[in-house]
Amino acid sequence: MKANYIGDFQEWAKDFAFFIEVRVRFSETDMYGHMNNTVSFTFFEQARIDYFRHLGVLMPSAIDENVAEIPIVADLQCDYVKQVFFDDVLRIYAKIAKVGNSSMDIHYLAKNQHDEVCFTGRGTVVQMDPRTGKSVPLSEEAKTQLASLVFL
Amino acid sequence: MKANYIGDFQEWAKDFAFFIEVRVRFSETDMYGHMNNTVSFTFFEQARIDYFRHLGVLMPSAIDENVAEIPIVADLQCDYVKQVFFDDVLRIYAKIAKVGNSSMDIHYLAKNQHDEVCFTGRGTVVQMDPRTGKSVPLSEEAKTQLASLVFL
Amino acid sequence: MKANYIGDFQEWAKDFAFFIEVRVRFSETDMYGHMNNTVSFTFFEQARIDYFRHLGVLMPSAIDENVAEIPIVADLQCDYVKQVFFDDVLRIYAKIAKVGNSSMDIHYLAKNQHDEVCFTGRGTVVQMDPRTGKSVPLSEEAKTQLASLVFL
Amino acid sequence: MKANYIGDFQEWAKDFAFFIEVRVRFSETDMYGHMNNTVSFTFFEQARIDYFRHLGVLMPSAIDENVAEIPIVADLQCDYVKQVFFDDVLRIYAKIAKVGNSSMDIHYLAKNQHDEVCFTGRGTVVQMDPRTGKSVPLSEEAKTQLASLVFL
Repeated sequence: MKANYIGDFQEWAKDFAFFIEVRVRFSETDMYGHMNNTVSFTFFEQARIDYFRHLGVLMPSAIDENVAEIPIVADLQCDYVKQVFFDDVLRIYAKIAKVGNSSMDIHYLAKNQHDEVCFTGRGTVVQMDPRTGKSVPLSEEAKTQLASLVFL
Repeated sequence: MKANYIGDFQEWAKDFAFFIEVRVRFSETDMYGHMNNTVSFTFFEQARIDYFRHLGVLMPSAIDENVAEIPIVADLQCDYVKQVFFDDVLRIYAKIAKVGNSSMDIHYLAKNQHDEVCFTGRGTVVQMDPRTGKSVPLSEEAKTQLASLVFL
Repeated sequence: MKANYIGDFQEWAKDFAFFIEVRVRFSETDMYGHMNNTVSFTFFEQARIDYFRHLGVLMPSAIDENVAEIPIVADLQCDYVKQVFFDDVLRIYAKIAKVGNSSMDIHYLAKNQHDEVCFTGRGTVVQMDPRTGKSVPLSEEAKTQLASLVFL
Repeated sequence: MKANYIGDFQEWAKDFAFFIEVRVRFSETDMYGHMNNTVSFTFFEQARIDYFRHLGVLMPSAIDENVAEIPIVADLQCDYVKQVFFDDVLRIYAKIAKVGNSSMDIHYLAKNQHDEVCFTGRGTVVQMDPRTGKSVPLSEEAKTQLASLVFL
């Protein structure tokens, strides 16, 4: 049951360079004794924001009348491979998989402390003007920078 | 181990009139098989907001430069009496226990579908100006209205 | 940017019959002023569980040594169409889109109080034996019942 | 508005030795642009569990028929002093304030990256037998160890 956004898994997995580390909280488990499946998206969000900060692009900021663009999530998906438990230490990897005119595809990979793949994911982020609700093209500079990070 | 904000429990409990109903979600349980203890505060928040809406006071709104006052939580506490489980249907009661110059004390009571007390709580809400971070006195009209709801 | 699990949207949307109603909580918003995007998956979980209960299949239960099968989420995805705000009342629709040997595909549709599509989603649920971690075939009876609900 | 569990604040604050560091997630903010007030209790939970692990007592574990005791939260409270924002790095301090026969009082203090007090809290944890729902006395050894950590 390989996810449709992954071609050759080994190839796909080795392209990740950036990651954050998270430890699964007690409140993130559920009565099945493992991490609740909605939590992976919280980890993706944190990894994405930290990755963007690392790259110096698309940082979230409080919205006021002067803010002309914020990153908005257009879609998200997660494929669960292995159960995750309380206190597991996960590395959440993020990489840019595609750069569009006003959007990017981000891929995610989560491994536990035993280096086992626990879940994978992807999602599109769009740069939007919060005042109009319309997408805003990425600058040529940002596009060039981001495109240089895409492995093919 | 009665909470210090409760005098005679029967007296205290019978003064509640307003309640909301919530059903405990699967994602709100933890690996102990019951509702995670942080969830009660989410229920208090919902009950408080719905109660204020019911009274027509202190409704939350998006903050912009024209918003002169928002309700802010100054403190919160919860005393757990009985375990709560997935799918339990809780009535979260809220009442005003004290009205100050710019604040109110709200008390909470949670009962399950068997009419058993599951947890109780309280907290102070302050009316604040988001532009200055300072408290804003309640209007005389609001104070009179709210004070009329306090049982003694 | 139509989601790849949706053919003709009108056809797809009209096949939903079951729904739950949820009201977006204050704690489910984020600093962008709208519902945080991780919350949709919590709503999907609740809709799925309630739908299974309605059908009388795959109910979650506390795990002990006698429990031979629990429903496990294999993957999840969500496509965001329209922003959702505090206090919006959403109908979360769920339907069975495909029945496999030990799994089912569930599709989701969320509409707000103005009958506007806010987000859509899908995910596979697998029946698993928690003692072995292996998938467990659905009974012939369950398969027949579930398959009868799939629109084609 | 000093919390009633704090005598002299300077004295109280200087007794903390153990802390964890957390960074406020985007999903932990709300539409007021700051950390939602229910999140502090998640941080207290994490600090408490890590502190217990550090001390080698009362670790949570999956419940099965052989588990004779788990730590249960009897009550919790939080006093909010200063707003917390996305990406703030908080130190959540925890200390044992009192040791009873089968319970402990834990106090909490949260400071941000500027060493400003953001919120304080406390709560009682009881050792319980999950099979009976009754409290279980702490061992003499544990009581002696824990009592030695209480500052007076």
